[in-house]
Amino acid sequence: MTTNNLNLNIETLRWRDNKLEMIDQRILPESFHYVAYDSAASVAEGIRQMVVRGAPAIGVAAAYGIALEAIRLQQEAATIFQAALEEGFKVLSTSRPTAVNLFWALKRMRRTWEHSLKTDPAAIAQALLSEAHSVFHEDIQSNRTIGAYGAELLADNSAVLTHCNAGALATAGHGTALGVMRSAVESGKKISVFVDETRPFLQGARLTAWEMVQEKIPTTLISDNMAGYMMNTGEIDAVIVGADRVAANGDVANKIGTYMVAVMAKRHNIPFYVACPLSTIDLEVGQGSEIPIEERPGDEVKGFRGNRWAAAGVKIRNPAFDITPADLVTALITEKGVVLEPDRDKLQALF
Amino acid sequence: MTTNNLNLNIETLRWRDNKLEMIDQRILPESFHYVAYDSAASVAEGIRQMVVRGAPAIGVAAAYGIALEAIRLQQEAATIFQAALEEGFKVLSTSRPTAVNLFWALKRMRRTWEHSLKTDPAAIAQALLSEAHSVFHEDIQSNRTIGAYGAELLADNSAVLTHCNAGALATAGHGTALGVMRSAVESGKKISVFVDETRPFLQGARLTAWEMVQEKIPTTLISDNMAGYMMNTGEIDAVIVGADRVAANGDVANKIGTYMVAVMAKRHNIPFYVACPLSTIDLEVGQGSEIPIEERPGDEVKGFRGNRWAAAGVKIRNPAFDITPADLVTALITEKGVVLEPDRDKLQALF
Repeated sequence: MTTNNLNLNIETLRWRDNKLEMIDQRILPESFHYVAYDSAASVAEGIRQMVVRGAPAIGVAAAYGIALEAIRLQQEAATIFQAALEEGFKVLSTSRPTAVNLFWALKRMRRTWEHSLKTDPAAIAQALLSEAHSVFHEDIQSNRTIGAYGAELLADNSAVLTHCNAGALATAGHGTALGVMRSAVESGKKISVFVDETRPFLQGARLTAWEMVQEKIPTTLISDNMAGYMMNTGEIDAVIVGADRVAANGDVANKIGTYMVAVMAKRHNIPFYVACPLSTIDLEVGQGSEIPIEERPGDEVKGFRGNRWAAAGVKIRNPAFDITPADLVTALITEKGVVLEPDRDKLQALF
Repeated sequence: MTTNNLNLNIETLRWRDNKLEMIDQRILPESFHYVAYDSAASVAEGIRQMVVRGAPAIGVAAAYGIALEAIRLQQEAATIFQAALEEGFKVLSTSRPTAVNLFWALKRMRRTWEHSLKTDPAAIAQALLSEAHSVFHEDIQSNRTIGAYGAELLADNSAVLTHCNAGALATAGHGTALGVMRSAVESGKKISVFVDETRPFLQGARLTAWEMVQEKIPTTLISDNMAGYMMNTGEIDAVIVGADRVAANGDVANKIGTYMVAVMAKRHNIPFYVACPLSTIDLEVGQGSEIPIEERPGDEVKGFRGNRWAAAGVKIRNPAFDITPADLVTALITEKGVVLEPDRDKLQALF
């Protein structure tokens, strides 16, 4: 399948023949290819290697990872099943540390297991699969609601900067930040998008640009270091990004570079919006500095794929996320509505 | 010649056999190769294609470009020589618009021509070559003086962030921003360097990292979007960058992304230094907004060299420079000394 005959409704994750299939986001946009998964360990590896990425999509993948593991083990005796499924939770929970949706989904799957009141592994597996499907469908529904709320914030003819990919590819569908763009366009508004290329994994250049071109939403790619210039020339009216975890006080962990974009937006009096479902808000973490920031392998920064350009012998740092303090966030856009100037009380009130 | 047997004293430009030879900076650090030039037009093309880049190096190259053209034409009759040399000035002056050192060097060569009081083309050519050699040697001397002044600003054990390449490769030798690192280390200080990779041409990852590794100065490469994170974690003590043009009021045009780094440095109370020779200061331009900003071909942002990763159909913007307002500049470091909080009066006083 090539990108040419791809249905516009991107199926980032899909359930086929009792397997989870995920678009391999490492090779987009040149190649469009699904990889099939049949166990918790394989899904965990897919998350680690960024076959799938984006906080909500990671959460959905993890939910299916548990369902897959239960299905795989359903012929085993109950005690073996239980121990092995526990192992599945463990391997998934160590796949990536920052996006809280992963832990949120695992908690939800565990609750389903505990509350299923069943001892038969096959019945438990069925309940877990049903729950994974719910996580999937609720994510799409949340994104559509987020999109509708967010669309109201954008004036007609707005140019909106986004960073990384908080699109259909980062979720079960529609997207969070890009869901707002989609919904605004659906509502009849003219929207144009600027997207940071988002080094080192290039989610902006590869994934967001790919999604927006398919939607025929006018989109301009820039290097990460050009965002300040574009704001200074008056070409950006708003910023919308997604989130990997929002702390109880409203601090936002998101893709590395988001913090710099937020500081620049503040300087230029440009609204900075964060679009995310409630599953991304972690009330157990008091503030951003407590959110674990993943450092990924240095090879990602040395080049891209097989192409290396960094001088030999140089050291590398590769933090994958940063923290944007709540006071730089104009509003959170959630499926429960828009939270202006988010703080502890307002976030608590959402739940 | 491979990088392994490269002399540490990098000869970015060198005069050999009546030709200008320049290291091809497009293919560093994988390949180390000199390209020879014998005319103004070929040097202009080398500047345009970024075989040579960096404001002072562009100025030196342009000076030699005029000398080469005069030598090439020295057998012609005086009237033909004059007209053709004028053409040489013209083609060089349209090679790149932002770095003022280009225009500064051309003015200086024109003055030499006008003041040579000679009519014999061969004698004029000799005077112009002598002047180009002076531009070359004065640049190295300026950089050593800048280095000495700048080194005094750095505390022992400082971690210094730089953006792009303001090194030996951007000058006739030693470098401006990297000249400060070199001089600080020579003076016995322990300095470590963080360098932004500097998309899209990757001068940081390819050129600055290559220079610093050769100097055995501990250097860490980060993506452009990681600078804010590193400042927030307290890992950066100072920022030093070069400049392509400084306006009369102290506003600084430098490689795209410099503005964002300066804003982040201000937020984190980290000193932001600009190291540049007086030939980079343009008193004829009142403020930064009057400096022409080059927009380069979009292909540079779509990928790197032959490797493309941007989604097909996306539009591209590629401004090569941005403006950092003077109020974000802690000090200019020049060969005439350190100018704290640069403004119109202080810059005027340098000349």
